Amino acid sequence: MVKLAFGSCGDSFSASSIKAYVAEFIATLLFVFAGVSSAIAYDPAGLVAIAIAHAFALFVGVSMAANISGGHLNPAVTFGLAVGGHITILTGIFYWFAQLLGASVACLLLQFSTHGQAIPTHAIAGISEIEGVVMEIVITFALVYTVYATAADPKKGSLGTVAPMAIGFIVGANILAAGPFSGSSMNPARSFGPAVAAGNFAGN
Amino acid sequence: MVKLAFGSCGDSFSASSIKAYVAEFIATLLFVFAGVSSAIAYDPAGLVAIAIAHAFALFVGVSMAANISGGHLNPAVTFGLAVGGHITILTGIFYWFAQLLGASVACLLLQFSTHGQAIPTHAIAGISEIEGVVMEIVITFALVYTVYATAADPKKGSLGTVAPMAIGFIVGANILAAGPFSGSSMNPARSFGPAVAAGNFAGN
Amino acid sequence: MVKLAFGSCGDSFSASSIKAYVAEFIATLLFVFAGVSSAIAYDPAGLVAIAIAHAFALFVGVSMAANISGGHLNPAVTFGLAVGGHITILTGIFYWFAQLLGASVACLLLQFSTHGQAIPTHAIAGISEIEGVVMEIVITFALVYTVYATAADPKKGSLGTVAPMAIGFIVGANILAAGPFSGSSMNPARSFGPAVAAGNFAGN
Amino acid sequence: MVKLAFGSCGDSFSASSIKAYVAEFIATLLFVFAGVSSAIAYDPAGLVAIAIAHAFALFVGVSMAANISGGHLNPAVTFGLAVGGHITILTGIFYWFAQLLGASVACLLLQFSTHGQAIPTHAIAGISEIEGVVMEIVITFALVYTVYATAADPKKGSLGTVAPMAIGFIVGANILAAGPFSGSSMNPARSFGPAVAAGNFAGN
Repeated sequence: MVKLAFGSCGDSFSASSIKAYVAEFIATLLFVFAGVSSAIAYDPAGLVAIAIAHAFALFVGVSMAANISGGHLNPAVTFGLAVGGHITILTGIFYWFAQLLGASVACLLLQFSTHGQAIPTHAIAGISEIEGVVMEIVITFALVYTVYATAADPKKGSLGTVAPMAIGFIVGANILAAGPFSGSSMNPARSFGPAVAAGNFAGN
Repeated sequence: MVKLAFGSCGDSFSASSIKAYVAEFIATLLFVFAGVSSAIAYDPAGLVAIAIAHAFALFVGVSMAANISGGHLNPAVTFGLAVGGHITILTGIFYWFAQLLGASVACLLLQFSTHGQAIPTHAIAGISEIEGVVMEIVITFALVYTVYATAADPKKGSLGTVAPMAIGFIVGANILAAGPFSGSSMNPARSFGPAVAAGNFAGN
Repeated sequence: MVKLAFGSCGDSFSASSIKAYVAEFIATLLFVFAGVSSAIAYDPAGLVAIAIAHAFALFVGVSMAANISGGHLNPAVTFGLAVGGHITILTGIFYWFAQLLGASVACLLLQFSTHGQAIPTHAIAGISEIEGVVMEIVITFALVYTVYATAADPKKGSLGTVAPMAIGFIVGANILAAGPFSGSSMNPARSFGPAVAAGNFAGN
Repeated sequence: MVKLAFGSCGDSFSASSIKAYVAEFIATLLFVFAGVSSAIAYDPAGLVAIAIAHAFALFVGVSMAANISGGHLNPAVTFGLAVGGHITILTGIFYWFAQLLGASVACLLLQFSTHGQAIPTHAIAGISEIEGVVMEIVITFALVYTVYATAADPKKGSLGTVAPMAIGFIVGANILAAGPFSGSSMNPARSFGPAVAAGNFAGN
């Protein structure tokens, strides 16, 4: 049941929409800061540390923004919710912008505060590109399905209380599962930030 | 108080029953995908990573399916709930089928996306078969008892909010406890999937 | 405000009291089984595994028994709650018996199912006995205070939902803190079970 | 919207205020005891153990004090809530005193009960002071923002149930992120206690 709605400027520039963009920006920034910094410190071993840092920080980031923007922190989640009619396309584009900006600022802050250490970017290891794509499809589907079942479902009941934790912890589990193979991104903003900071973006 | 009920086709093929089978299939698939993949990457060391991946993924998987199918994800849990009359035998058999199918598809997807790595199967280590059976009885009883006390009990109250987490985390704890000895299965579907993918099933 | 009450046989042998003893027995058995088994497998390194196994298993054990017996699983907690008048002395003694029995059966089951491996008992390391006592006083106080503040307090509100998790996780944190020094018991039943199984009890 | 209020002695010495100071003292003591002890046992490796000990112990410490003092356990949190008008300056100063006292007593107890082992103090590693300050600003902001969004916000709804966990877990995530670089303090009391115990305070 695809329910895409384009939206209107009046809606997308309302005070509550703008508060939602700021909430997405800040929460994505803080999530990516914690996640990427744990990867700088521990890459390539120490996957448990990286998984716990992402699980805990995403749980908290979703909690931070939940009552203002819904706590997406992830362009793939925003896209998934737009397909279900939970957010209009126009507002979703501004969510994307806020998320990518938050992730980029996080990585630039990290590059400064870690004395210019290399920011690790995701890469596949020991598997082909199509195999990596299949793996990312499964784990990103797991994440978006979790968002729908625990946070977006109007009949969620008491599951809503643990929804931010379910969203953070499925990412933690999937980092332990897919990290060594596909890099376990699940989040275009989480991948975009390090690329900006590492100068890998726009042809460098 | 055994309350086994055989059930009827009308009940087992109702729209809500079929939605329940699909929910079991998807949630079991995603749980087994995360769990087995973490075991591929870390076996035989890294038990903490395997335990956390299973605990987090099962918590989320139970949450995903809780409001549709009850969130069993495990033939042993479905059997336990059938004995208490929470589900009819006929519907339970379809739950089993959905769970075994989800686990098998998860492992086939994993075998593809990890470039054909061996899928680890459970095995006992350093103990006899009867000793392994006793260990599995204790830990599987712990899991089913948790499901009854926190999710199935009509007087559960606020425990219901944390029930999916309790179910996931008792599996995590028991993997740390029994993993090095009996393999810590607790879930026939979780064992069935890797056997299918590894070609260990049906006489190979 | 010490509110000790001795209690009566009628109260201590009521149907709900006997259900409470059985609940304490089973939950303590399952908690000690998971905790001690993780210690057999990982001792003396792998403290993270031991801490997570205890934190998860105690959270689940308290959840299992919460609505029947209050979920003590620990003679020190039962004593602390008797001092505050939450349970009579007579009923508390039966709780103690159920907890010690559960822990002992857990360790005997473990000794069988791990092919007779040595059951690790707690011991102080590198510190004097009085130093170990001070450390155990602080961490056991932390546990009992947690039970009072999150589970026993009638004004606890929504904290009650996460009380079993708080009780499990403070034990996990204190194992990481005190484990290398005082053994981090906090629970006489958890120490009693291994002593029974190891034959260290009653003069052996 | 800075809403600083100075407060009055009548308010700051009321019975409920004094109970709040005691609650802050005890909870900070228990949190710092667990956190610092895990750092004594595991420094400098074992960051996962240190992060989990802090995350679990802070979650429980905030839960302990939540219904009495609000569960700050951290002078930076008390300051952040004073700026928003949630606590008067005068009462906040007594909160600070209770927190610093709790942290100091925790570290003195630890110094005794670990047979006089050195209490690790935070230090930056491989980065400049200004870089360390930027990192600490980001992670302390993350913590205070979490407190505001999940605990202080009157419209928090069911997020309030998981607020103590969010507060503890963001500290755990940030220890994994910033620990190897800036020491990841986020809490002046957590830094003050070890300095007192190590004799690094007041010119020694």
